[in-house]
Amino acid sequence: MANYQKINASGNERVELHDRIGLTGAEISVNFMPAGGCVPFVHAHKQNEEIYIILEGRGSMILDGETVPLEKNDFLRVSPAARRQIFAAADSDLRYVCIQVKENSLEGYTAADGIM
Amino acid sequence: MANYQKINASGNERVELHDRIGLTGAEISVNFMPAGGCVPFVHAHKQNEEIYIILEGRGSMILDGETVPLEKNDFLRVSPAARRQIFAAADSDLRYVCIQVKENSLEGYTAADGIM
Repeated sequence: MANYQKINASGNERVELHDRIGLTGAEISVNFMPAGGCVPFVHAHKQNEEIYIILEGRGSMILDGETVPLEKNDFLRVSPAARRQIFAAADSDLRYVCIQVKENSLEGYTAADGIM
Repeated sequence: MANYQKINASGNERVELHDRIGLTGAEISVNFMPAGGCVPFVHAHKQNEEIYIILEGRGSMILDGETVPLEKNDFLRVSPAARRQIFAAADSDLRYVCIQVKENSLEGYTAADGIM
């Protein structure tokens, strides 16, 4: 496999990156939701921790029945079993990244994994 | 552990999220680099795939000697062994996220890992 792969995901179409840039340790999607929109179902995961990054706009997530507000530059970790549903605000589009990684899969990182 | 944790990382200080939001499958850092700046060393990794997300601005990465331009909304996967160094453009600040995940750690994802 190439030592790197790159894509630009600036449009409003959902883009799933796993196969597009050859990811092996994560799936990453880039998502746009118009004001008032939502993912039309509640879901959880078997193995995967999710991390949401809010790129633009405002919205909220209902997480096991609790409403968590979301705004630009928020980084949100969600445990696999949590039941979740994401919403754009009534008056704001929402652009976000969703990262799936296998829970407890990371071993060393940064200085412990780096080679200078 | 709580079923979720959230942080807002909108400033120009580097923020490492692993311990801040209880990540177990990734380390994620949020980084700001002023125009003309760079990470002052070349590095590679033992086990970890990295994914860079460009949030704002322009820059470049030298990857095994090849210069790869970077701009807002770019998503770049870098293999563990690749020798890398990131730079802000001379005339543009660079704001980016760096995600470390263990190469080949992801098993099922999206429909294969989701529970409705």
